[in-house]
Amino acid sequence: MLTEAEAGNLRVVLVAARNPLNIGAAARAMSNFGFLRLRVVNCYDVAFREARSAVGAPELLQNAEEFASVAEAVADCGLVVGTTAGGSRQLEHPLHRLDLGGTIIRARLAAERVALLFGSEKRGLSNDDLSYCHRLMRIPTREAHGSMNLGHAVAVCLYELIRAEYVAATAEPGNRASGAALERMTRALLDALKKSGYTKPGTEAATEEKMRRLVRRMQLSEEDAELWTGMLAKTGYRGKGQG
Amino acid sequence: MLTEAEAGNLRVVLVAARNPLNIGAAARAMSNFGFLRLRVVNCYDVAFREARSAVGAPELLQNAEEFASVAEAVADCGLVVGTTAGGSRQLEHPLHRLDLGGTIIRARLAAERVALLFGSEKRGLSNDDLSYCHRLMRIPTREAHGSMNLGHAVAVCLYELIRAEYVAATAEPGNRASGAALERMTRALLDALKKSGYTKPGTEAATEEKMRRLVRRMQLSEEDAELWTGMLAKTGYRGKGQG
Repeated sequence: MLTEAEAGNLRVVLVAARNPLNIGAAARAMSNFGFLRLRVVNCYDVAFREARSAVGAPELLQNAEEFASVAEAVADCGLVVGTTAGGSRQLEHPLHRLDLGGTIIRARLAAERVALLFGSEKRGLSNDDLSYCHRLMRIPTREAHGSMNLGHAVAVCLYELIRAEYVAATAEPGNRASGAALERMTRALLDALKKSGYTKPGTEAATEEKMRRLVRRMQLSEEDAELWTGMLAKTGYRGKGQG
Repeated sequence: MLTEAEAGNLRVVLVAARNPLNIGAAARAMSNFGFLRLRVVNCYDVAFREARSAVGAPELLQNAEEFASVAEAVADCGLVVGTTAGGSRQLEHPLHRLDLGGTIIRARLAAERVALLFGSEKRGLSNDDLSYCHRLMRIPTREAHGSMNLGHAVAVCLYELIRAEYVAATAEPGNRASGAALERMTRALLDALKKSGYTKPGTEAATEEKMRRLVRRMQLSEEDAELWTGMLAKTGYRGKGQG
């Protein structure tokens, strides 16, 4: 899972939300997934703190910060990401698939505050709102019915943010190769390359680093890593082959 | 994306939902992600068809089927999956991470109807409801606040169902190795194994199949596949090495 500090660096920013129930529902989704810092900008009804549907998230709503403008709400954030559903009207921004956008956000949360913006129920984020965003993230609703409930959009985006860590943390033991197994495979590969003359003299260090990264990109299971190690050792060994 | 026929095989089943707004919101999430077949069991308010928040999903609600019992609602489904959020009280069922549960459901949708059950807002699915389920799927909300809004739960589960296909369909060109590149790599690997004596006589066909699957499990980029092909060709070639 994300660390508390990382999750604590996210600011969910609701811009011009119109319905207190939606604000409450968004707060509840935030609490469900462990993101507790809500900011609201220019919301219709300041009674949002009493939003009824926020079962179990009253504290989060009490602590929510109100701002008069998007500029103020994102002033202390190093990355500002807007959200959109369905087909996008905006082509000026880098538009990311939700999963890739999530990866970018997670990486930045380790070091700085990130603002995740959601627009109003009717119109989404305005062009002016978008001018404060570095990136845009799209929820893949279908073209025939792209417009999404605000609370749903928040829930799906935050689920995507915790998903990768959750999948990694709960992977069945042995499902992913250990560092030791990957290192054995890397060694076997380097040995085979050296023996075959693939590695040019003077490039050993660069090759080693390149191969280490290559092996780690493969996302192998422990069994597959061992299989590769055995095969590479054999080809490197220059055995009783027929070639 | 899932084909229309596959998505059409899913039955979202709301059991004892209490709030018409939630039913409407669930319907909207279904429509957003392209799942149009709703069933409701023993819901409190039969006025759900008028649920206001279902912006754009009136037809889906008109076509919803009502049942008096879970047994009747899932009678024509080959797989019945229950959903739960937070820590589970139920240990009698295989409990799946949402992403793995999604994989299982997608695979079955190609051939038969699958029921995805959501319990009431207050209590979730009852033990009796669960007795009709083959599997359980857990939405990874945090322990401190596990209980999730019904519409949110539907949105997150359905997003997970379309997510894998969406990611695959929108991968940037060249991001994944082509079949031809993977086959070249497989050939180079088989050749290296044969030359090194790794492949035992009489096992060539089995080895070939095994290696073909191994290479495809690696999820390589085109560049990485070409890199491997080059390295394997070189080790297989038994070149000017030092070994």
